[in-house]
Amino acid sequence: MDRQLNIVRFVSVDHMMQIVLGRGVERVLTDLAAGIEADFARWEMFDKSARLASHSRDGVIELMPTSDGGQYAFKYVNGHPKNTRDGRQTVTAFGVLADVATGYPVLLTEMTILTALRTAATSAMAAKHLAPAGARTMALIGNGAQSEFQALAFKALLGVDRLRLHDIDPAASARCARNLEGFGFEIAICESAQAAMLKAEIVTTVTADKANATILTDNMVGPGIHINAVGGDCPGKTELHPDILRRSDIFVEYPPQTRVEGEIQQLSPDHPVTELWRVIAGQAAGRRDASQITLFDSVGFAIEDFSVLRWLADEAARTGRFDELDLLADPDEPRDLFGMLLRAQAA
Amino acid sequence: MDRQLNIVRFVSVDHMMQIVLGRGVERVLTDLAAGIEADFARWEMFDKSARLASHSRDGVIELMPTSDGGQYAFKYVNGHPKNTRDGRQTVTAFGVLADVATGYPVLLTEMTILTALRTAATSAMAAKHLAPAGARTMALIGNGAQSEFQALAFKALLGVDRLRLHDIDPAASARCARNLEGFGFEIAICESAQAAMLKAEIVTTVTADKANATILTDNMVGPGIHINAVGGDCPGKTELHPDILRRSDIFVEYPPQTRVEGEIQQLSPDHPVTELWRVIAGQAAGRRDASQITLFDSVGFAIEDFSVLRWLADEAARTGRFDELDLLADPDEPRDLFGMLLRAQAA
Repeated sequence: MDRQLNIVRFVSVDHMMQIVLGRGVERVLTDLAAGIEADFARWEMFDKSARLASHSRDGVIELMPTSDGGQYAFKYVNGHPKNTRDGRQTVTAFGVLADVATGYPVLLTEMTILTALRTAATSAMAAKHLAPAGARTMALIGNGAQSEFQALAFKALLGVDRLRLHDIDPAASARCARNLEGFGFEIAICESAQAAMLKAEIVTTVTADKANATILTDNMVGPGIHINAVGGDCPGKTELHPDILRRSDIFVEYPPQTRVEGEIQQLSPDHPVTELWRVIAGQAAGRRDASQITLFDSVGFAIEDFSVLRWLADEAARTGRFDELDLLADPDEPRDLFGMLLRAQAA
Repeated sequence: MDRQLNIVRFVSVDHMMQIVLGRGVERVLTDLAAGIEADFARWEMFDKSARLASHSRDGVIELMPTSDGGQYAFKYVNGHPKNTRDGRQTVTAFGVLADVATGYPVLLTEMTILTALRTAATSAMAAKHLAPAGARTMALIGNGAQSEFQALAFKALLGVDRLRLHDIDPAASARCARNLEGFGFEIAICESAQAAMLKAEIVTTVTADKANATILTDNMVGPGIHINAVGGDCPGKTELHPDILRRSDIFVEYPPQTRVEGEIQQLSPDHPVTELWRVIAGQAAGRRDASQITLFDSVGFAIEDFSVLRWLADEAARTGRFDELDLLADPDEPRDLFGMLLRAQAA
């Protein structure tokens, strides 16, 4: 009998950092975007459902499963904006990849870092199809834990190399600028969101407050811009004034989830949106002209996690950067679970 | 800063066996049943949903979350009847307990063994309220991985000490009988399900085939018996002839889930059933008379897993039988996830 049947590979935070740094953050972002794009192109093969959310006063815990019939993946992720007060992350996550034929998990991994990477990779991948051609300047509003990943993804995939940072906490912008030194950006720190928008061809909003905030007002959004709206991802948590939405062509991941969680929760349930996968599969147009306002109303969908978990399984195998976890009971004879206990007692 | 914020306790299969054996299987079953009963009594405090199932040709993978507002728990569990052909378990599981206020997971554990224990504890806890008074004889049909746990739970909670075993594989019955030697049972191995039913006051069906099987036919079920139907727990997977259901008073865990997965999937969606928690909370009658046929249509519900995860968290803490898992990214400054990567590179 193969003794390895019950071993689940585990990628710790330390191993994740080694894998990401070993390959290089920008190359990782490019890898992930390619995997996500390929899976979006075969969207119809996936078993899809809106994530299962458990809401509480201070946050939400979500389970995000999907399967392509061969592999199954799910992510556990929380969102608790007040966590940073106690030194905790707003968002933490871990995930599992499993084999559909046997139901056995094969990989368990930290996904806090991986989620920041996949969210940024998805944003930049969408922008490849939606942002104005040749865009080099991005306003980046909200300079917290996800901001550098967003910046690097747009650089790696689109060549964006001018950043205009704004955060209600100036220290956050300063830290973001410092962290991005040496990556080839020209960076301006701006005192207001309005100032950050000056000459921006792309704006990324990635703030954390659990509120119907108005990070962008209608007058701040000129023709031709691409809006990458990342921070509005929960019922009651939005970033854009609804008038902006009405002027934009809106692209979403999975409508049944985005209608509840995204910026479009502010619109009527039948407001037209385009599924991003259709653009990638050639079934719908992305950006059509230079004056159009495009909006990627990103909330994060399970297929993105599925894609990056598969990438990670390969990278962990290739680099040997994983531990082995004794997670699955493994009796000598599969129907004899109780006998396994008896023999453990005898031993 | 508390360096322990990011540490998740992990109970491996080995640690689980040590915890269970250290306390004794029958005492564990009694502990678990008490915890489950207490949580059923406060049923209305829980955030409940039918489990999220991903069905495939050979099986199912399910996520089972619930929360009482203070703690959140979920279980990953598969059911793949053909797995035993390759030396794998039909059912494997692992679970997580998390803190609702922060969204941080606090415990990750194997749950293959724990699921067998909790299913048996739930069955026996239900039977305390539903089986005929003083019942000592149980037919146990299906002698696979869960059978000994069922037998011991009924012994620990109800004093059942006469077992009548049947399995389509005689070797399974022989192994079950051998495993239960020394636990104080009088055991008969029976050539047919019908023979096993002779003088049985309780019958437990716990077979694994994914089919609409007929383990019990109507003529085999006399008045006064309690049926503990465990194996029918999936769409298209049942064990009882529908005529039996029509003669029985049916008790279920969570109707929206049981209507889809349980024996009652064979009945009309408005067939009357009683929620077991109402019996425990004193809102509904359990067994009313000696001739009544009672049926616990068990499919397994998330609150049971929640209860046993809480028990396990306490036992792991008490015995020190856990490892520490580096599962959650822990930057010195919570908004500086990217800086953590940079510092890891510098180090």
